[in-house]
Amino acid sequence: MTSIDLQLIRDALLEALREDIGSGDITSRAVIPAEARACARYTSKQPLVVAGVPVAEQIVRLVDPMLEFKTLEPEATSVSAGTPIAEIRGSARSILTAERTSLNLLQRMCGIATLTRRYVERIQGTGARIVDTRKTVPGLRVLDKYAVTCGGGMNHRMGLFDGVLIKNNHIAFHESAGKAVQAGRSRLGHLVKIEVEVRNLDELKTALNSGADVILLDNFNPETTRQAVTLVGGRVPLESSGGITLETVRDFAEAGVDYISVGALTHSVPAADIHLRITPE
Amino acid sequence: MTSIDLQLIRDALLEALREDIGSGDITSRAVIPAEARACARYTSKQPLVVAGVPVAEQIVRLVDPMLEFKTLEPEATSVSAGTPIAEIRGSARSILTAERTSLNLLQRMCGIATLTRRYVERIQGTGARIVDTRKTVPGLRVLDKYAVTCGGGMNHRMGLFDGVLIKNNHIAFHESAGKAVQAGRSRLGHLVKIEVEVRNLDELKTALNSGADVILLDNFNPETTRQAVTLVGGRVPLESSGGITLETVRDFAEAGVDYISVGALTHSVPAADIHLRITPE
Amino acid sequence: MTSIDLQLIRDALLEALREDIGSGDITSRAVIPAEARACARYTSKQPLVVAGVPVAEQIVRLVDPMLEFKTLEPEATSVSAGTPIAEIRGSARSILTAERTSLNLLQRMCGIATLTRRYVERIQGTGARIVDTRKTVPGLRVLDKYAVTCGGGMNHRMGLFDGVLIKNNHIAFHESAGKAVQAGRSRLGHLVKIEVEVRNLDELKTALNSGADVILLDNFNPETTRQAVTLVGGRVPLESSGGITLETVRDFAEAGVDYISVGALTHSVPAADIHLRITPE
Amino acid sequence: MTSIDLQLIRDALLEALREDIGSGDITSRAVIPAEARACARYTSKQPLVVAGVPVAEQIVRLVDPMLEFKTLEPEATSVSAGTPIAEIRGSARSILTAERTSLNLLQRMCGIATLTRRYVERIQGTGARIVDTRKTVPGLRVLDKYAVTCGGGMNHRMGLFDGVLIKNNHIAFHESAGKAVQAGRSRLGHLVKIEVEVRNLDELKTALNSGADVILLDNFNPETTRQAVTLVGGRVPLESSGGITLETVRDFAEAGVDYISVGALTHSVPAADIHLRITPE
Amino acid sequence: MTSIDLQLIRDALLEALREDIGSGDITSRAVIPAEARACARYTSKQPLVVAGVPVAEQIVRLVDPMLEFKTLEPEATSVSAGTPIAEIRGSARSILTAERTSLNLLQRMCGIATLTRRYVERIQGTGARIVDTRKTVPGLRVLDKYAVTCGGGMNHRMGLFDGVLIKNNHIAFHESAGKAVQAGRSRLGHLVKIEVEVRNLDELKTALNSGADVILLDNFNPETTRQAVTLVGGRVPLESSGGITLETVRDFAEAGVDYISVGALTHSVPAADIHLRITPE
Amino acid sequence: MTSIDLQLIRDALLEALREDIGSGDITSRAVIPAEARACARYTSKQPLVVAGVPVAEQIVRLVDPMLEFKTLEPEATSVSAGTPIAEIRGSARSILTAERTSLNLLQRMCGIATLTRRYVERIQGTGARIVDTRKTVPGLRVLDKYAVTCGGGMNHRMGLFDGVLIKNNHIAFHESAGKAVQAGRSRLGHLVKIEVEVRNLDELKTALNSGADVILLDNFNPETTRQAVTLVGGRVPLESSGGITLETVRDFAEAGVDYISVGALTHSVPAADIHLRITPE
Repeated sequence: MTSIDLQLIRDALLEALREDIGSGDITSRAVIPAEARACARYTSKQPLVVAGVPVAEQIVRLVDPMLEFKTLEPEATSVSAGTPIAEIRGSARSILTAERTSLNLLQRMCGIATLTRRYVERIQGTGARIVDTRKTVPGLRVLDKYAVTCGGGMNHRMGLFDGVLIKNNHIAFHESAGKAVQAGRSRLGHLVKIEVEVRNLDELKTALNSGADVILLDNFNPETTRQAVTLVGGRVPLESSGGITLETVRDFAEAGVDYISVGALTHSVPAADIHLRITPE
Repeated sequence: MTSIDLQLIRDALLEALREDIGSGDITSRAVIPAEARACARYTSKQPLVVAGVPVAEQIVRLVDPMLEFKTLEPEATSVSAGTPIAEIRGSARSILTAERTSLNLLQRMCGIATLTRRYVERIQGTGARIVDTRKTVPGLRVLDKYAVTCGGGMNHRMGLFDGVLIKNNHIAFHESAGKAVQAGRSRLGHLVKIEVEVRNLDELKTALNSGADVILLDNFNPETTRQAVTLVGGRVPLESSGGITLETVRDFAEAGVDYISVGALTHSVPAADIHLRITPE
Repeated sequence: MTSIDLQLIRDALLEALREDIGSGDITSRAVIPAEARACARYTSKQPLVVAGVPVAEQIVRLVDPMLEFKTLEPEATSVSAGTPIAEIRGSARSILTAERTSLNLLQRMCGIATLTRRYVERIQGTGARIVDTRKTVPGLRVLDKYAVTCGGGMNHRMGLFDGVLIKNNHIAFHESAGKAVQAGRSRLGHLVKIEVEVRNLDELKTALNSGADVILLDNFNPETTRQAVTLVGGRVPLESSGGITLETVRDFAEAGVDYISVGALTHSVPAADIHLRITPE
Repeated sequence: MTSIDLQLIRDALLEALREDIGSGDITSRAVIPAEARACARYTSKQPLVVAGVPVAEQIVRLVDPMLEFKTLEPEATSVSAGTPIAEIRGSARSILTAERTSLNLLQRMCGIATLTRRYVERIQGTGARIVDTRKTVPGLRVLDKYAVTCGGGMNHRMGLFDGVLIKNNHIAFHESAGKAVQAGRSRLGHLVKIEVEVRNLDELKTALNSGADVILLDNFNPETTRQAVTLVGGRVPLESSGGITLETVRDFAEAGVDYISVGALTHSVPAADIHLRITPE
Repeated sequence: MTSIDLQLIRDALLEALREDIGSGDITSRAVIPAEARACARYTSKQPLVVAGVPVAEQIVRLVDPMLEFKTLEPEATSVSAGTPIAEIRGSARSILTAERTSLNLLQRMCGIATLTRRYVERIQGTGARIVDTRKTVPGLRVLDKYAVTCGGGMNHRMGLFDGVLIKNNHIAFHESAGKAVQAGRSRLGHLVKIEVEVRNLDELKTALNSGADVILLDNFNPETTRQAVTLVGGRVPLESSGGITLETVRDFAEAGVDYISVGALTHSVPAADIHLRITPE
Repeated sequence: MTSIDLQLIRDALLEALREDIGSGDITSRAVIPAEARACARYTSKQPLVVAGVPVAEQIVRLVDPMLEFKTLEPEATSVSAGTPIAEIRGSARSILTAERTSLNLLQRMCGIATLTRRYVERIQGTGARIVDTRKTVPGLRVLDKYAVTCGGGMNHRMGLFDGVLIKNNHIAFHESAGKAVQAGRSRLGHLVKIEVEVRNLDELKTALNSGADVILLDNFNPETTRQAVTLVGGRVPLESSGGITLETVRDFAEAGVDYISVGALTHSVPAADIHLRITPE
């Protein structure tokens, strides 16, 4: 993440802190002496892929700019259980106040990166790539999508504004997928590609003739996917989508598609197990 | 959710829409006629507990106040797969633009309610209650916690501001859990209860004598939990916490604790499977 | 105030500056040379209790991060008239632009702390404590409540979110204060205490039996307060409230209550007399 | 207040509600049935001048747009103790949630209007007018200044942006008050008047010759004020300022000045005593 | 503009009003009776293309939701001088307060649409299309770009996020335009097209071989443009850019390019001459 | 611009960046190595008056606080074509991301300053001054008006809040311009001047007798302007307004008015031609 990418989410991070801290961290204020100092380490409790340390750092700095923050593992690294990922040093109260919000973000982002990496490894050696979807947590899409790239996945469009995907719900307003594509083409700019969703080989044929740039095979099985690949013969890239799991992903990849999109990377991600061990100094 | 609760998250919902729509929904604008109208139904594709329909409604109204929105199933209802939960009618473009953001929120909230309900049902007949944690998605805590109540769970504190929980990371700055509780008591207001985390029966004893209002048994197993319950003898409420799963939750409930907190309700929730079927009118 | 507490009110402080400065401080711009430098001191013109210097400092830094700010008296100190409390040095224009907004905040906060201290001193030697209310200036509650603590008072709840106080307006929807408490108990979390307001000794008895954690004696006089204390016999803490003044506060304290809440601490506070003497350098 | 004036403070009012309600009004939620309805009346408990009912109305509508709000007394009216000022009808929970924030604003604004009216009445029959200052509560200046007009006072400048007042702290950077005025004149636009503060008759003379449009007599007593009025002979308007009280204000007015500014109107205002009686329906 | 597009710029419009109205429209308040009513018409004083009426309407509604607004000419219509475009009816004060901000937006947007239409008409009958650039006024890009479409132009990318344009400043970090394109291709998603800027025919050749999707001819003259068209032979679309004026635009269009981008459409647009005639009622 | 003036527009500048960068600068991210460094210079391509370099600097710092920014030409300087105005050094990606937004602001502000300077020079030696209007781009008024002062112009009022200008649309609600002025005078504060617009010599006479402080001659020609000057005889300042161009401005100045307001300075300003040359380091 670049400096400006972090700057543009600053307000969202501050809201996350406001949501947790509100009128004050009454526990730390009552229990921890104002002058107490501590050292704390974000440490993995499971093997994981690191993602989000710069975000945790920004949370920490928002809570208290005097805290020292040291990154111990670079983004996108695979680490084993028990690895210290980052370290903070300074006011004990500030560290305790920042703990939960920074962990919530870090655990989610590492969770996404770790799950993505498993998909990516599962299809290694095939020509396919894992891509994400718009099924992200509202308010945190840039973080979710960044974490996918840390895991080795590729981002699909960021939103409705930067890519065209004509889905069944759009096609329903036209005679065919092909007609929908043609309608779109005439109104879209010269830097815009059109991807269209098809549900069977017949729709695939009309889409192919309509000038779509990318075709999404919605809920095809590996066998019909293979037929689709043959039928298309490399004329446009193909994307598999719909209920693909770690168990089935390689079958799709070997069927020859170019992209496999997986909603579960972001909509049902298990938080990575990370905790913050705090030591008084 | 009351009117003002929704009003207070209005800006967060608008940001969620801005994140997805940005400079415009270029697909709908290019492919759907401006005057096309449609009817759409949010329909479950799995058994689930409903939560978040008022939030989906507010998303829909933000996108287009002219859309008609009809709630078909009340909050906290269990529905089977294939049940229509809510219905929208109006501009097709507006419905398509609102689709993903409203679904992302609804799927998360129903996912949380559904998972919570499973925990609640698993301990039915015991005196224990399922409670949530602060391990929520940054920016959406009120929605996550509200969904827990739809599932039949009880909310723990909302943040650092409205409840005191003295955890190991706080106790580390004191001689004992008991000393930490006493330090807190002298500085806290008269409406504030103190909950303290203990890791074993010895710590439990000092906490008990220190005047804690609630004691959290951190990572106890069912057997030591049972001993703790006996030892405390009803003098203060007890809360079990730490890695409790659907498989083990009943063992803890039957050990006699009052509350069981489950981080997974919100930190690793699988999105409920819901889709929006859109029909041109 | 911790770093993050100040960070969370930063936008409110910036709005306070925007309200005063708007499209520009036209007087300083026209009358003071851009390169003029000055030294300025916030100086008390009456005996007062210091509160809010870190807030004044943040105002000054928002106006011009190049200004040097030196705190001369720590928070919660009693100072006599004529005492310099803080000092600024740097651009004369910046100092003049920051003057009024920083003074408005500082005078209000010192005013609250000073008034609170008078109440606290008046009841010295009794076991009672002075607490505040929610009758604060909209938008500045955390500052008002912090100033109360500088004066030696204790904070009651911060808002509707972090404490339960069942008042007459709530009880009106139930048969009795006791029934209202019971209704609340069944729906509230395990970290929540219930305080209930009673208007006479009969209501006090039903409240006591209902399991309230704290009882507020609304508009009791010192004599009935004494009877209430006897009746309760230490089973729950008691709070006196309603029109208590500097003249009457000791009578209530000596009647034996634990807490005395005083709305006037924040709703009718006279600004402390402080000015900023500016000297060209 | 016009529609747009209220619109421009909408975010500040929403922040005031957020500050009080935060993650939810837990008392009303627990104690009041969701379907309970009530009628409530804002009623004076002292003689007062009404100011701020439209602001209370907006607070009420932000909490719940379904609440009916009826204004019973127009702005700027003098009412006796026991007068109903406005009435709300609808959801009991919503009314209870809106109670404190709307009262806090209404009590402050009526307090300011009532105090201003007392000053205005004290100088009746003289040619002088009461004006306010910038000593307002940060964040609420437009409300404070509007309340002054309800009391019959006149607004001085709104901030640093819409009027020039050269004070001692500015003059310190020049040889004399007159030089400061001349410096300002050459740099200011054609719609800008210059007011200058003088501390004695000598300064008054130089200011008069420098072309100031208005002269402020800082901490003059009534006798020197009278001399100043004679000396100026109507060439420019004069404003008295500095520690003027209800006891002394008429002496200044009778000395012949045009304006008398009173900081206490807004910096030390006692809240008017108003309460909200709620009746279940 | 759809409902949500207007909703997403609501805060920017409110800021525009705040900038003009601030602490209040003191002229209307002093000069116009509160109860005065008026009818007002936005009327062209020159031939122009209509753009921005829905934006003016939203401004008017923000100022006063009770004002009636009637659109008289649809977006993208060419009208002659003296044509009423829209009409408002209601409070005279509100109309006067909304006048300038609504006119500033409407005049700019009609100015852009009118200028764009002239370019579009100038190249009629050729296959080329007029496109805009990112040289818009900061804060109003969606309005500027929407106005371009009202004039018949086509939008280029909305920002850095939704399209790739490799310019000379990027190519400087690579051996050649072609190398830069290849570097980009390997890191970009499957819905992203790459446009690359070339300064002469040699660069054009390497770009063509590198797999660019669109090529921008930077500062070519009509003659070299013609050679470029021949050289490319329809393999990729071509865009002319750089200092193209109404005088020269047709030469480029006739040279055979597909797109002609014109920065002046938005960076140097003369405001269309429109005024608001207000009639008391 | 002072530090606080820049601080108060910080959010507007951040929105300008968000509008351009959104979910990320995909070109730089794909094409420029993360570690590449560059030097870049803002260089004039036409003779111009410098305005806005501090604003460009703040844009650059918001994008990346590690970038070094060096101002090479002070504000308000006239420079010839080919002059470097400012220089940045640091991360190549950051520079490329900041390029367009900083240029858009700088080009507009220099454009305004340059055009203003031409008007100012055209009337040199007369006693008249060039002033601006409220016809600025919504959201950027303080920048537009500041740029006018860099060009040597004088600011008229900043908005509706800091000056009274009674225009034809106000006078329509009164019998005459004079009556409107009198109505205003009785309700306005002592620091407020009244300017009134007149359309002919008759209106001028009634305005003069009504006590207006400044009179605006709306759409007078140079000849009637001369008559107006004679008629007024220096009793109040006069301002010419309405369609005045570089060709006609001197005629008005020589007719003897004090101020000449020119809407075109800000509503139809051609962007100054400036570019950013970036050199890899």
